Amino acid sequence: MTDDSKPRTAKDTHYAKLRRAYRDEKAGGTPQFRARQPVAPGEAPSDGLVRLYGLHTVRAAIDNPRRKIQRMMVTRNALERLEIADVSALPFPTEIVEPRDIDKITGSDAVHQGVLIEAKPLKPKSLADLKDTPLVVVLDQVTDPHNVGAVIRSAVAFGAGALVVTARHSPQESGVLAKAASGALEHLDVIEVRNLADALGELHDAGFRTIGLDSEGAEPFEGALSGDRIALVLGAEGKGLRQKTRETVNVLARLDMPGPIRSLNVSNAAAVSLYAARRHLAGQG
Amino acid sequence: MTDDSKPRTAKDTHYAKLRRAYRDEKAGGTPQFRARQPVAPGEAPSDGLVRLYGLHTVRAAIDNPRRKIQRMMVTRNALERLEIADVSALPFPTEIVEPRDIDKITGSDAVHQGVLIEAKPLKPKSLADLKDTPLVVVLDQVTDPHNVGAVIRSAVAFGAGALVVTARHSPQESGVLAKAASGALEHLDVIEVRNLADALGELHDAGFRTIGLDSEGAEPFEGALSGDRIALVLGAEGKGLRQKTRETVNVLARLDMPGPIRSLNVSNAAAVSLYAARRHLAGQG
Repeated sequence: MTDDSKPRTAKDTHYAKLRRAYRDEKAGGTPQFRARQPVAPGEAPSDGLVRLYGLHTVRAAIDNPRRKIQRMMVTRNALERLEIADVSALPFPTEIVEPRDIDKITGSDAVHQGVLIEAKPLKPKSLADLKDTPLVVVLDQVTDPHNVGAVIRSAVAFGAGALVVTARHSPQESGVLAKAASGALEHLDVIEVRNLADALGELHDAGFRTIGLDSEGAEPFEGALSGDRIALVLGAEGKGLRQKTRETVNVLARLDMPGPIRSLNVSNAAAVSLYAARRHLAGQG
Repeated sequence: MTDDSKPRTAKDTHYAKLRRAYRDEKAGGTPQFRARQPVAPGEAPSDGLVRLYGLHTVRAAIDNPRRKIQRMMVTRNALERLEIADVSALPFPTEIVEPRDIDKITGSDAVHQGVLIEAKPLKPKSLADLKDTPLVVVLDQVTDPHNVGAVIRSAVAFGAGALVVTARHSPQESGVLAKAASGALEHLDVIEVRNLADALGELHDAGFRTIGLDSEGAEPFEGALSGDRIALVLGAEGKGLRQKTRETVNVLARLDMPGPIRSLNVSNAAAVSLYAARRHLAGQG
């Protein structure tokens, strides 16, 4: 269940080797060959722009009419893999570069795959913009951009209509978050709220059943699924849901795990609960 | 569904703040305060040892009788959070240090939480050691240690008995992998095989139904679940399952996703399929 949508060319193998060599080395193994010199990230972009990189991420950004792109740096290889024949047709300036030129900006830790754009961040929406969706994900101060990006990817895959986050204690849109979302950031409304308990109340008024995921929850998750609009509420690793959130959701529910480890990574908990909620909504739960 | 098992003290808040500040800054946000100077990782450990860090990871390693620990570096805070009252009772030498001393070894990117051990890697097992488990996960050349660690965590949570990987093109045991597994590495048999197709044959002989996850699979995943022993076979992001693997598994199955993104991160695909397989085996599928 992997990225079969990614354009595949002979270059894939080359990039895969570079990535593997670099990762093996970071992981303490013996590198097959030395890919590139490690480089620290450069300065942050100016004017509140965000830098997005990676083939999926940039492809999705280019295809998103809401996304205002200011400029692109791209290698010849990446241009081919993005299937862009004529850069002059793009509505923003493009510079053809070598991979190391992008390394100097993102740092060589970032798997940029030879393409970087600078763009305006997407404008967060408000709850009033919530469309007619039966499924949303609510994050209670999950701060790790890798985790939030991975949650966005799963949310879009399982057809959730929005991600609700608090304006404070949530990661800003960034290259790391967007790369983990693998293009999904362009497909989901991110709704920022000031007060999560108030937002849960609004979701209740809109007919949502709010289910807080909690390993000590009284209900098994499957038993907590009912009705035709579901909001899944997840907390951060190590902290879980805040007390006020726990008091406000309709039900606290647990995913039963028979093994000696009783908790999942937050993005994995989100994926499992999205899967089960989607099956419930489709009448297959 | 988060780490409620983690010991909680007043220190949690302090560490959480440090991590948040550091991550926000990496993500391009404005740090609340400057936590510590960034430091690059030091030299690799000698003698084929691995370095494991983080509270969950080290706690689980100490509790694992199979794990041979050579030494520990630990801060006073971490010692308290690990609930170790008397270091002289530990069967390995321990050094009380400051967080920056560990930074110099792991690099400041690693969330070591004030504790690091050097230990012998766990000996990989062979398929002949496979116990009487109804559920295993097979990875076909998944190389990213973050992903493999996260898969191990979910596998243990959902009670899988073993992880089967190829001896080549799999990450070595490492601090990154162990941290992503959050202690679960100590609870799972990792079985290394030379030839994955042969290994699938042995699993068939042992009564396993092997299900390859593939977004183009002919069967919906739920329909592919049958019998009382299940092996879930997953490939790497971007590459998927190799042709020989695709030809050897009993069935290629897809997780249906209604949204515009048609693929999950490999650890999320593993979590969802483990959840569904576990429910099938419990007669709730």
